[in-house]
Amino acid sequence: MSIKIGIIGATGYTGVELLRLLAQHPDAEVIAVTSRSAAKTALSDYFPSLRGTYNHLIFQPPEQASLNQCDVVFFATPNGIAMQEAPPLLAQGIKIIDLSADYRIKDVALWQQWYPFTHTSPEWIAKAVYGLSELNRTAIAQAQLIANPGCYPTCISLPLLPLLQHHCLADNQLLIADCKSGVSGAGRKANTGNLFAECSDNFKAYGISGHRHLPEIRQTLNLLQPQIGNNLIFVPHLTPLIRGMHATMYVQTKDGHNPYQLIADYYRNSPFIDVMPAGSTPETRSVRGANLCRISVQPAPQNNTWIILSVIDNLVKGAAGQAVQNMNIMFGLEETSGLKLTPLLP
Amino acid sequence: MSIKIGIIGATGYTGVELLRLLAQHPDAEVIAVTSRSAAKTALSDYFPSLRGTYNHLIFQPPEQASLNQCDVVFFATPNGIAMQEAPPLLAQGIKIIDLSADYRIKDVALWQQWYPFTHTSPEWIAKAVYGLSELNRTAIAQAQLIANPGCYPTCISLPLLPLLQHHCLADNQLLIADCKSGVSGAGRKANTGNLFAECSDNFKAYGISGHRHLPEIRQTLNLLQPQIGNNLIFVPHLTPLIRGMHATMYVQTKDGHNPYQLIADYYRNSPFIDVMPAGSTPETRSVRGANLCRISVQPAPQNNTWIILSVIDNLVKGAAGQAVQNMNIMFGLEETSGLKLTPLLP
Amino acid sequence: MSIKIGIIGATGYTGVELLRLLAQHPDAEVIAVTSRSAAKTALSDYFPSLRGTYNHLIFQPPEQASLNQCDVVFFATPNGIAMQEAPPLLAQGIKIIDLSADYRIKDVALWQQWYPFTHTSPEWIAKAVYGLSELNRTAIAQAQLIANPGCYPTCISLPLLPLLQHHCLADNQLLIADCKSGVSGAGRKANTGNLFAECSDNFKAYGISGHRHLPEIRQTLNLLQPQIGNNLIFVPHLTPLIRGMHATMYVQTKDGHNPYQLIADYYRNSPFIDVMPAGSTPETRSVRGANLCRISVQPAPQNNTWIILSVIDNLVKGAAGQAVQNMNIMFGLEETSGLKLTPLLP
Amino acid sequence: MSIKIGIIGATGYTGVELLRLLAQHPDAEVIAVTSRSAAKTALSDYFPSLRGTYNHLIFQPPEQASLNQCDVVFFATPNGIAMQEAPPLLAQGIKIIDLSADYRIKDVALWQQWYPFTHTSPEWIAKAVYGLSELNRTAIAQAQLIANPGCYPTCISLPLLPLLQHHCLADNQLLIADCKSGVSGAGRKANTGNLFAECSDNFKAYGISGHRHLPEIRQTLNLLQPQIGNNLIFVPHLTPLIRGMHATMYVQTKDGHNPYQLIADYYRNSPFIDVMPAGSTPETRSVRGANLCRISVQPAPQNNTWIILSVIDNLVKGAAGQAVQNMNIMFGLEETSGLKLTPLLP
Repeated sequence: MSIKIGIIGATGYTGVELLRLLAQHPDAEVIAVTSRSAAKTALSDYFPSLRGTYNHLIFQPPEQASLNQCDVVFFATPNGIAMQEAPPLLAQGIKIIDLSADYRIKDVALWQQWYPFTHTSPEWIAKAVYGLSELNRTAIAQAQLIANPGCYPTCISLPLLPLLQHHCLADNQLLIADCKSGVSGAGRKANTGNLFAECSDNFKAYGISGHRHLPEIRQTLNLLQPQIGNNLIFVPHLTPLIRGMHATMYVQTKDGHNPYQLIADYYRNSPFIDVMPAGSTPETRSVRGANLCRISVQPAPQNNTWIILSVIDNLVKGAAGQAVQNMNIMFGLEETSGLKLTPLLP
Repeated sequence: MSIKIGIIGATGYTGVELLRLLAQHPDAEVIAVTSRSAAKTALSDYFPSLRGTYNHLIFQPPEQASLNQCDVVFFATPNGIAMQEAPPLLAQGIKIIDLSADYRIKDVALWQQWYPFTHTSPEWIAKAVYGLSELNRTAIAQAQLIANPGCYPTCISLPLLPLLQHHCLADNQLLIADCKSGVSGAGRKANTGNLFAECSDNFKAYGISGHRHLPEIRQTLNLLQPQIGNNLIFVPHLTPLIRGMHATMYVQTKDGHNPYQLIADYYRNSPFIDVMPAGSTPETRSVRGANLCRISVQPAPQNNTWIILSVIDNLVKGAAGQAVQNMNIMFGLEETSGLKLTPLLP
Repeated sequence: MSIKIGIIGATGYTGVELLRLLAQHPDAEVIAVTSRSAAKTALSDYFPSLRGTYNHLIFQPPEQASLNQCDVVFFATPNGIAMQEAPPLLAQGIKIIDLSADYRIKDVALWQQWYPFTHTSPEWIAKAVYGLSELNRTAIAQAQLIANPGCYPTCISLPLLPLLQHHCLADNQLLIADCKSGVSGAGRKANTGNLFAECSDNFKAYGISGHRHLPEIRQTLNLLQPQIGNNLIFVPHLTPLIRGMHATMYVQTKDGHNPYQLIADYYRNSPFIDVMPAGSTPETRSVRGANLCRISVQPAPQNNTWIILSVIDNLVKGAAGQAVQNMNIMFGLEETSGLKLTPLLP
Repeated sequence: MSIKIGIIGATGYTGVELLRLLAQHPDAEVIAVTSRSAAKTALSDYFPSLRGTYNHLIFQPPEQASLNQCDVVFFATPNGIAMQEAPPLLAQGIKIIDLSADYRIKDVALWQQWYPFTHTSPEWIAKAVYGLSELNRTAIAQAQLIANPGCYPTCISLPLLPLLQHHCLADNQLLIADCKSGVSGAGRKANTGNLFAECSDNFKAYGISGHRHLPEIRQTLNLLQPQIGNNLIFVPHLTPLIRGMHATMYVQTKDGHNPYQLIADYYRNSPFIDVMPAGSTPETRSVRGANLCRISVQPAPQNNTWIILSVIDNLVKGAAGQAVQNMNIMFGLEETSGLKLTPLLP
């Protein structure tokens, strides 16, 4: 099978990562890349790392690109673009995987609280399937439009799914996600705060009063164990990594549950989720460049209290890798097709 | 005044940082530096950064150094040295500031659980004053032997002191300290795990099942609000900073307390504690190279729940700077003498 | 003495570094900081690292600042500002130290080739003294306007001055300066190329076909040994350091000269130049935060051929520190006043 | 085809990189990994990044490993091991690719000057083929023992081969290789100088008076253009990268040669050598994780003088990748088999 692929907004980090992953995919053929700012530039001039991999692709403005010949189009765009440009493609029957936030939140009013836009295609929100692959495999296989999850929601939700499924998180107890992200998560846009001389050798929290991924995480939690999202405290931090995300979660369970066992059982047949042995601590570099989430569970000294650690590469399982995983599911391919990547260490 | 100073074990990071700080101190004169491994090497050959600052000092083996001419001797040694080498100096009336853990834990049996030694001078443990300057100023002024706190205990305890003093932490509720440390905290000893190619671009938790600073932190907490230390969950992480420590704490208070106000009041006249305005988030580089702890308090959405952020430079307020601050207090100097340092940014 | 100081454009890295250095200067009083973009913001809100150091200063737009009450005004501005805003201050008799390139090149036509401006105050170029302190001490003491050197020109010129003074570089032989700079040298302006995720774990050359510091370096070389600047090949590289600059120079001398001896003699009484012993290699961190240039000379196997290594902190000896050194000279202070800084290591 | 492979000394960086590359190779089957220090440890416990990739391999002491069932054995060992342990395997007809320096230098006396060993199998030195793939393809295809080149020699020699082949480097003129290496080049052995807190935010030269790769580079140069190696000045630097090597070379050619054209012609059909367009500057991250060398040539202002830039990933084209490339050639596979890797950027 050769899936014809377009990528909209391929000048950012999720775009170039999609290109890296798709280059190694046996059934993928990227036929169009678009960008207004880089229009007419050869892809390999823009990203010299792709010299020799994509020699013939040239950035086109979206309206001139042959997107209607694509089987699937990825939006690797800032928020607010896909809600406008995806519907005409959807109307032609093209599958869409949106890596931005446009279709992630089911409650459009809530979405509009967190994003500074009036949603222009709310009718597609209900049809969109939230692309947390390990949660929604069946629906993804049938979907035309995938809302690919954010990196924090992926890193936090994956270890919690098995606990939520059993409704075993304690009510009225704190649920804390202390998260640390590499700087590529902020994108490739010029921004003083993300300069090397600002971020290197520096660590800080940010967005405590409200990060945009919070409603997305709450939505997933509440869907599986009603109301439990209200317990959540989510504190993101910026750490001097290029790639990598680490969630340290503090959870309390109802009596009689063993999170380690629940998580290990849930993911027994999930090729991209690695539940590590007792006493392990995952490190971000152990997933660098790979579509993996590694999880470890450690008991706290207090009753029914657990420390859950989870790492992903924010650009892979937290973005482009999960998007390709969803593509595989949508097209009936082996879920691991093109994604059997060994992490780059050191 | 000219305080004559010796530094034992000056080849490590806390040693070289003491040397940097004391070079700028108007009343300090370092007359002896010791090291077995570097004996007979000029200090400025060992640390070229000190060329021009200390041109005449030469490392001596401890037994040959003129330590008995010192007014104060700093131990910047691995654990287990000061307990042996400090007592003879103490017997001569020399003041000691021990930057290692040898005299920090009052319960010698507990100390021996966490450190692989039989304590050789337990009689000095009771006489030692725990050198958390902002807690123990009066006792420090009278002390002959200071047990200088660890970096994590300093970073965690400082913001909590005002809350503990009012016994306002809620009983039977979790008290979480999710901490992130730069790599210099692990010292200058050769160790595969601390190599550049292992730590750079990597983030991980470690020591979850029990870090040596845990009993030290608990001791401080319980001293001020009995039993509250049992609530503590302490998870340290290693982050790719040379210097810097960040504590993210999740605390629950009894009804009717405002931690921000308590902390601001407590530290009104403390020159090294900066309680930041509401909504601020401190960053580690904002204290780089300076003897400061910057603290911020943010309310969580849940009742009586607070996120407290605290940053220090682990080598300064977390080690050598606090040691010099204690020296100032012990010798009746201005507490800020030699320590009015502006952080290095960027 | 209390020198009243204004800083124009204090929101960048050289500005905040000036503020750090001047805070520790016994005779300096910063009375005005200006910035259009940050106007009305408290300095300590803009740079939290300065909380507690400068509590009362507020950024003002230049035209509203009380600059006419200053004894000296530093321009820490982008190129093209000082040439417009300095002359009115100069007309009032205020001393000016310009950290930008506006007055560095004596040949205004050449300057205009390299900078995209028509120079608006060429009459001041001839009066400006090039502030390479170790070269021009006497002239600096008499000057009203200092053109503070660029970082590359400082790092390259300092080790070469003694050789140029003796006209001992070989004619018609290559003179190579292979230089490596930290990212803060590019300033604090938002720029994709300087993002953490672009610069971290990456090394590259840039500006080979012509870097703006090239004519400045050539001017200094030719001034001392005519024509020798034409031999120069200057290749700058970007390396993932916040601060730090390293020049590796390959020089060939006429018969009978020993560069090590010439350099050591020349700098015998220069407090900020450290000529290291034979066989040493300076490292950038050995000058981090300090107004130092450390130099090492090593013979190459070939006749009369030498490898000269030189390191500075680009923000200190390469910018703000040298500016303060020049201020000291201009005001008849001890040259080291406020600048006896021990490098921050690690 | 399924090539049975053993890796001796697989606990270091070249070892784990070989494992990463071979995991993706369609014709490779790693059947034995050896290590004394890690014996009996599962490979995936030692390197958690390999969990899910190699679940069944366990480190064995070399003498217990089933190496005699291997078609090829890689030595990823410190220098001095292969010279002892390779000959018995060679005697059994097993092919050997030695990533250490044991068989690289043809002149055993010279080798013994640079390495602190008496060579124990000098009879194999003459039979060994120097595995610079682009130079020695034909001989490699016939060889039983490959001396895989060092990282600096690879990075320096590749761009020079076409010039040397035409004997077009000017006689009696300097040939300068100013090189910068990431820290993984120093290996995974615990060493204070390679600690994160020593190398991060630091840049320095090292080994100027004589780096072990110097005789290896000279041997290659002299082989192709006699005597020219004497012109070479080689200065290595350590830069805070995990991976990556950058050579900046200053060369002078005889009249009438255009290095850009010579290099482009020479490598027209070489899949792993990328000769970049005029005016380009390669960056190390553009080859991160890939078996590539990217080269750029820029004219200097002086006659017949050129700046040649070359980047490799020191662990891939500088070590494990070139080793796999050589394996492909030895076994008659497509040279790019398993090595069509897209660099990881950012």
